[in-house]
Amino acid sequence: MYDWDELLSPYKQAVDELKIKLRSIREQYERTSKHTPIEFVTGRVKPVTSILDKAKRKNIPLEEIDEKMQDLAGVRIMCQFVGDIDTVVDLIRMRTDFEIVEERDYIKNKKNSGYRSYHMVLRYPVQTISGEIQLLVELQIRTLAMNFWATIEHSLQYKYRGEIPSNIEKRLQRAAEAAFRLDEEMSQIRGEVQEAQEIITRNREQ
Amino acid sequence: MYDWDELLSPYKQAVDELKIKLRSIREQYERTSKHTPIEFVTGRVKPVTSILDKAKRKNIPLEEIDEKMQDLAGVRIMCQFVGDIDTVVDLIRMRTDFEIVEERDYIKNKKNSGYRSYHMVLRYPVQTISGEIQLLVELQIRTLAMNFWATIEHSLQYKYRGEIPSNIEKRLQRAAEAAFRLDEEMSQIRGEVQEAQEIITRNREQ
Amino acid sequence: MYDWDELLSPYKQAVDELKIKLRSIREQYERTSKHTPIEFVTGRVKPVTSILDKAKRKNIPLEEIDEKMQDLAGVRIMCQFVGDIDTVVDLIRMRTDFEIVEERDYIKNKKNSGYRSYHMVLRYPVQTISGEIQLLVELQIRTLAMNFWATIEHSLQYKYRGEIPSNIEKRLQRAAEAAFRLDEEMSQIRGEVQEAQEIITRNREQ
Amino acid sequence: MYDWDELLSPYKQAVDELKIKLRSIREQYERTSKHTPIEFVTGRVKPVTSILDKAKRKNIPLEEIDEKMQDLAGVRIMCQFVGDIDTVVDLIRMRTDFEIVEERDYIKNKKNSGYRSYHMVLRYPVQTISGEIQLLVELQIRTLAMNFWATIEHSLQYKYRGEIPSNIEKRLQRAAEAAFRLDEEMSQIRGEVQEAQEIITRNREQ
Repeated sequence: MYDWDELLSPYKQAVDELKIKLRSIREQYERTSKHTPIEFVTGRVKPVTSILDKAKRKNIPLEEIDEKMQDLAGVRIMCQFVGDIDTVVDLIRMRTDFEIVEERDYIKNKKNSGYRSYHMVLRYPVQTISGEIQLLVELQIRTLAMNFWATIEHSLQYKYRGEIPSNIEKRLQRAAEAAFRLDEEMSQIRGEVQEAQEIITRNREQ
Repeated sequence: MYDWDELLSPYKQAVDELKIKLRSIREQYERTSKHTPIEFVTGRVKPVTSILDKAKRKNIPLEEIDEKMQDLAGVRIMCQFVGDIDTVVDLIRMRTDFEIVEERDYIKNKKNSGYRSYHMVLRYPVQTISGEIQLLVELQIRTLAMNFWATIEHSLQYKYRGEIPSNIEKRLQRAAEAAFRLDEEMSQIRGEVQEAQEIITRNREQ
Repeated sequence: MYDWDELLSPYKQAVDELKIKLRSIREQYERTSKHTPIEFVTGRVKPVTSILDKAKRKNIPLEEIDEKMQDLAGVRIMCQFVGDIDTVVDLIRMRTDFEIVEERDYIKNKKNSGYRSYHMVLRYPVQTISGEIQLLVELQIRTLAMNFWATIEHSLQYKYRGEIPSNIEKRLQRAAEAAFRLDEEMSQIRGEVQEAQEIITRNREQ
Repeated sequence: MYDWDELLSPYKQAVDELKIKLRSIREQYERTSKHTPIEFVTGRVKPVTSILDKAKRKNIPLEEIDEKMQDLAGVRIMCQFVGDIDTVVDLIRMRTDFEIVEERDYIKNKKNSGYRSYHMVLRYPVQTISGEIQLLVELQIRTLAMNFWATIEHSLQYKYRGEIPSNIEKRLQRAAEAAFRLDEEMSQIRGEVQEAQEIITRNREQ
């Protein structure tokens, strides 16, 4: 039997370390009383059943899982505003504790399903008791509304094994539009809030 | 100087205990593979500056803060669907580890601002090294979309000290409508999902 | 197959709640700058393999495990000084969030093996999504030295399946004596520390 | 006023990251069912009052605190057996996520007070929102018994401001000897345990 625990435990370690590291970004912004671009951070190792499903679907042999499956370790950053996503991407690019091997912008180019999110694949070094190993971690950056919709879509995809009936797919798209609309309205207010803050700051300095 | 630490530390204890307790509801649903009505749970003790602001605004003497301010300890439960809120309210009413002293339904009766949320005030017993004390905890139950909007509104209220300019208020209301719309669309899908699940279950049993 | 997850998950919940609750005792003492009788708190649910071993050894049918096995949920409080144990026992007896159903003092009456510890069995109420259930939790209170020795003895017992060779047992007893000796020496200093503190306090008040 | 929060928050970040990283060593050993050389890991940032005391005592100007005070961030690894300390030191030397800048062996060369512990000073890189910074972290490796005694001694030193009366110092030394004795007895058993394990393994393979 395949020793999943041995394969996956460094990935769990990577996720735990990255959650601690990325959450500290939020704390740093809060400490300096600036608008924090990060609302919260989650992470998970892909469940074994999902790995097997995906390996079968994409025809990946078990020995090549760690090279060919880029989302064994997944970390997700949620933002309040669409505009925060760029700030987060810049912060990630600046770091020296991992290497970025790929970026995919599903916000500028949203998927047909309505899926929006910014993806990065990182090569992250983990220290084990037998030495350093490097492994791939998928980082997803999205707004709360994008995340909300994506969660629902994911469960429906899972349930219908990728073949969502067209009437349900239509409703799902209407929900995607509502989520998009919410992000748009929020972006409008973001501008207001920042303008307002600038006015307040200017008034205070006089 | 007032010893805030002494006043607030049992409230912190109550929040910590309730977070552990309410998060276990989610785990129980997951273990039995049923749709969990709880997405996540957060909690906080009201910061001292906010207590002082509110005490001044509402004319509450410092000695009466613990009786008259019901939200010194606040716990919040977030749900995916509007319909999940009723399930959570029923679960809360069934419990024997605290007493419900008040309920306010701002979903059936939303505030003029657009605020929607279900509020309960609990009387919760905390064990201290000098014996049991009972204190008030405010519990808020809302969807992710309600929460998203409420967070934004809260910061704007804070910034404009309760007097948001009318043009910004209009945008805030449009955002509230977008959030409401998103909840409506999601509720539509919830029905589909549950119907689909029933069909799947029926098919499996044949 | 027996559903261990269903049986044990409320026990896990009880352990999680009690760890949060008992750790707060330490914080309360620290906040008031008094010597804290609690050094740290740990907890665990008994692993399934250990449950099965014990059930076989003690001839307990699976259906009676939850009534007859009092240590499915175990919580442990570690103290710096032997004298702190009495303080902790008093604090436990004072609480109203559980009932004490049994106490065994293996410090006044140490076991032949050298084992010393204060045991209490609690009946603790847990709220589940199907209502309140009450379950037994074993609470062990010991010094750091008692705990250190007990950990070693436990692994040796496990390894030799309860039949430790006599030459190793002798060494284990010498270690138990060294642990006892360390506790005695520490107790001597505890007196000094407290006397010193009283002198300091008296001097300050003059 | 000096902004302690700004100075110390990257140190807090370093401590949080190192606790997660070093605790994973324990998990890796447990997963492979080998004796784990790490019992538990703790960490702390030096409290501001202690920093000020030490700066005064050692005549360190505030601007040079981060270079000259090597224990602003402190991480401690506790081991069951004295022999485990060497294993841990080797694991630390092998890592590539920090640089070791100093090692002091207070076990081979114990202090006059009776203090025993293995110290390492690490240069650890932390990612902040303004870029990478490198800072010093003190790592202490000790047995449970060494730690127990050191904790007591630390509070007495603090209380008597470094001038412990000679009668109390004598008792403290007797306690140090008892702790040393306990470590010796435990080391004896460690040998037995490992021999026993080898016999068991050999028997199993026949």
